[in-house]
Amino acid sequence: MQQRAPAYITRQIPCYELISEEGLIKVEQTADKILAQVGIEFRGDEEAIRLFKSAGATGEGERLRFEPGMLRKILKTAPARFTQHARNPAHSTQIGGRNVVMAPAYGSPFVMDMDKGRRYGTLDDFQNFVKLAYASPWLHHSGGTVCEPVDAPVNKRHLDMVYAHMRYSDKAFLGSVTSVERAQDSIEMCRILFGVDRLERDCVIMGNVNVNSPLVWDGVTTQVIRAYASANQGSVIVPFILGGAMGPVTNAGAIAQALAESMVGCALTQLVRPGAPVIFGNFLSSTCLRSGSPTFGTPEPALGSLVMGQLARRLNLPLRCSGSFTTSKLPDAQSTRESTLSMLTAVQCGANFILHSAGFLDSLLSMSYEKFVMDSDFCGAMHTYLAGIALDDNALALDAFHEVGPGQHFFGCEHTLANYETAFWESELADNDAFEQWSDNGATDMTQRANQRWKKILNEYEAPPLDESIDEALCAYIDTKKAASEDAWY
Amino acid sequence: MQQRAPAYITRQIPCYELISEEGLIKVEQTADKILAQVGIEFRGDEEAIRLFKSAGATGEGERLRFEPGMLRKILKTAPARFTQHARNPAHSTQIGGRNVVMAPAYGSPFVMDMDKGRRYGTLDDFQNFVKLAYASPWLHHSGGTVCEPVDAPVNKRHLDMVYAHMRYSDKAFLGSVTSVERAQDSIEMCRILFGVDRLERDCVIMGNVNVNSPLVWDGVTTQVIRAYASANQGSVIVPFILGGAMGPVTNAGAIAQALAESMVGCALTQLVRPGAPVIFGNFLSSTCLRSGSPTFGTPEPALGSLVMGQLARRLNLPLRCSGSFTTSKLPDAQSTRESTLSMLTAVQCGANFILHSAGFLDSLLSMSYEKFVMDSDFCGAMHTYLAGIALDDNALALDAFHEVGPGQHFFGCEHTLANYETAFWESELADNDAFEQWSDNGATDMTQRANQRWKKILNEYEAPPLDESIDEALCAYIDTKKAASEDAWY
Repeated sequence: MQQRAPAYITRQIPCYELISEEGLIKVEQTADKILAQVGIEFRGDEEAIRLFKSAGATGEGERLRFEPGMLRKILKTAPARFTQHARNPAHSTQIGGRNVVMAPAYGSPFVMDMDKGRRYGTLDDFQNFVKLAYASPWLHHSGGTVCEPVDAPVNKRHLDMVYAHMRYSDKAFLGSVTSVERAQDSIEMCRILFGVDRLERDCVIMGNVNVNSPLVWDGVTTQVIRAYASANQGSVIVPFILGGAMGPVTNAGAIAQALAESMVGCALTQLVRPGAPVIFGNFLSSTCLRSGSPTFGTPEPALGSLVMGQLARRLNLPLRCSGSFTTSKLPDAQSTRESTLSMLTAVQCGANFILHSAGFLDSLLSMSYEKFVMDSDFCGAMHTYLAGIALDDNALALDAFHEVGPGQHFFGCEHTLANYETAFWESELADNDAFEQWSDNGATDMTQRANQRWKKILNEYEAPPLDESIDEALCAYIDTKKAASEDAWY
Repeated sequence: MQQRAPAYITRQIPCYELISEEGLIKVEQTADKILAQVGIEFRGDEEAIRLFKSAGATGEGERLRFEPGMLRKILKTAPARFTQHARNPAHSTQIGGRNVVMAPAYGSPFVMDMDKGRRYGTLDDFQNFVKLAYASPWLHHSGGTVCEPVDAPVNKRHLDMVYAHMRYSDKAFLGSVTSVERAQDSIEMCRILFGVDRLERDCVIMGNVNVNSPLVWDGVTTQVIRAYASANQGSVIVPFILGGAMGPVTNAGAIAQALAESMVGCALTQLVRPGAPVIFGNFLSSTCLRSGSPTFGTPEPALGSLVMGQLARRLNLPLRCSGSFTTSKLPDAQSTRESTLSMLTAVQCGANFILHSAGFLDSLLSMSYEKFVMDSDFCGAMHTYLAGIALDDNALALDAFHEVGPGQHFFGCEHTLANYETAFWESELADNDAFEQWSDNGATDMTQRANQRWKKILNEYEAPPLDESIDEALCAYIDTKKAASEDAWY
């Protein structure tokens, strides 16, 4: 069924439950043993260590161990669902429960299009991807580091990035996580945009942070988590496990590790501020046997993610999963092969927040313009998929069979006329013409059509209105911060 | 986990159960009402009408109606699983239960490759696709009309097709269904290949037949079903429903229709010969709203197929579903986008026999050489997917965490060395190299690599041994049949 531009999706289909409760308990017990016997290292954040020790963790120095049940108890204060508010209330997202929010890919140093090939991302590119996500009816969220704007100084680019999300979109977004000061800048800019008091009531920004897998939380990251949580803002806690490198090559072990690592990060938010919004994250991938390089969109992490969804539901926490993974260097047949498996898995595993929904290319090294529009088109298909199957009398269509009868066609029948317009998902990039017409129209492949499409969207882009005084205050904040320190490029 | 060349897959993961039992009952009741109130037309096969009437169907002339429960009772004699034997016993397939068999696409008049573009299929092309399926470790079955050999006379090409499956492969295959005489020729040739007595014991050939949807069984098809069933051979009974054309535009109605139509065809096999092997088939597709042309690999039929799987299990019948659907005219990003959704659905819905697993292009109008190898590669990935997740102590890898500890990598650890070789699925067509290496190697896309691949496979092809006297007998049979009538081209 065609649906247009909801702020988020409420799923009407069940999650795909891959393994039995007995199996889930085995995985949970393994995670518990990792936490109790091996433990987690906290590097360079005494306060995080103090918080965990006061909650019952044991250990000397930076290595803490956790008795089974301790973290689950702490996690009981975390909300099962929450709203991340956008500056346009029509785009505020519900995260958790049966809701699904799709956001662009995050973190590529390069950008890529079929005209100019691969090159380092710039602030222009960053703004382009914010605009493309804003214009897409199928992306609910503006994401975070949609590409690295490598032309801006490392210590100041977060200001430009957060401003771009605020200025060129009115959807919800992610803030900086590369240092606690940058996280605090992101939060301060939200205080300007949303009002100081608002943040005490509402989640308006989130930080997406990675575990330093295996089993290490570094101090920059835990400080960032503490900054967002203490401001009542959201954290997305994501183990980053490439099987065979940062975790075991066997799926079950990697899943247990992800569970252990993510529980710790999620618990930290609750120790800082019980009730702070937090998302249980998942990022599993495989490696190429011959080269040791990571591979994305493969079957093992797909299975692993389905289990991660089962585990998240048992914790009663919102789940983040990754969408359109691929190892391909081009927006070609390999890229959609891998991304479709990956995105469909995110949808089926019950993910509430799907990062990397659009644009992901080359093992996350490139953000692709063509793939961005190809993937967001598939996000549209997933809206229809998640809507499930209507089973009312109109849908069951018994009257239509009486009307049409054996051997006749349904083209002009009453039931068809009454339901035709909303009947089928229609892709904006798939070519559904007959061969001859497709041939007459230039015999294009999907990548060529995507190339036309993103240019058209950017040409037609119009910025959402932003209160001028707020814009000035944001710019003033940014100018002051930029003036206060030298540019740094590392 | 890497697996090599099983004769079929035994699934280790559950099916994806999309709708509740209450919903399934609604669909079944609608199918029952279609059968009891609207009925099915049988055109030009008095014997089929006689068989159904003697089993309790009512009606005048060609239109028969069936009381609820009548067909289900007849279907109780159908086997829940059976073996389709191949001439090489190592390739005999188990169909039904938790088993999955993958077969090439079926029925395209055109073939297509990236060197020569689209053209009518020939007997050479037909033989090539039989060879490609034989050479693939991931295709368990040789299929049937892998393309139409348009250079052979219409009334004789079935002899060449069946011979090609017998001569150039030793996997199981499908016989002709375009007339009862051609079905009988297919069966006769099996008597030569397998021995006359063998067919009374074992299923060695199947006919894949389409309903003349909506709600019509034509006489040619029912005669063909009767021919295969009376010879103790298999039938695959497939409604062919493009929503809005041969069925309602609403998913639930199309599903109910497919259930009704397929139950009738399956029941016919049991009236002819109780216990005859039969597969409950499913072929749902959508239509493009603007042009009315069919669309493949879209989300609605994916959902519909998941429900068809649930319904087949309630009937305790083996299920056929379609694999790598696409509307694309090229083996491009659109084609793998659509085919991945479609193939993954077939795997998740519990299909036991997946036709159209490889090569499908252009809404079934073309059989593509490049897509054939791209799809069969993905069939390999689906072997890993269907193997699920091991949950033994080795897989849970607790020892590895003790060995490696926080902040270290798993590359050289004992657990990795013990499990590395079988750890991850490895595609033969995905490029997993780093950008620079990929660039140095020619910066190919997957379609270009597939173009190289199918040529390499055909170059290296070696025919499986075939007893010379059997080969001579087959050729003599074919020569006699060909000499007995004029060529006909319609």
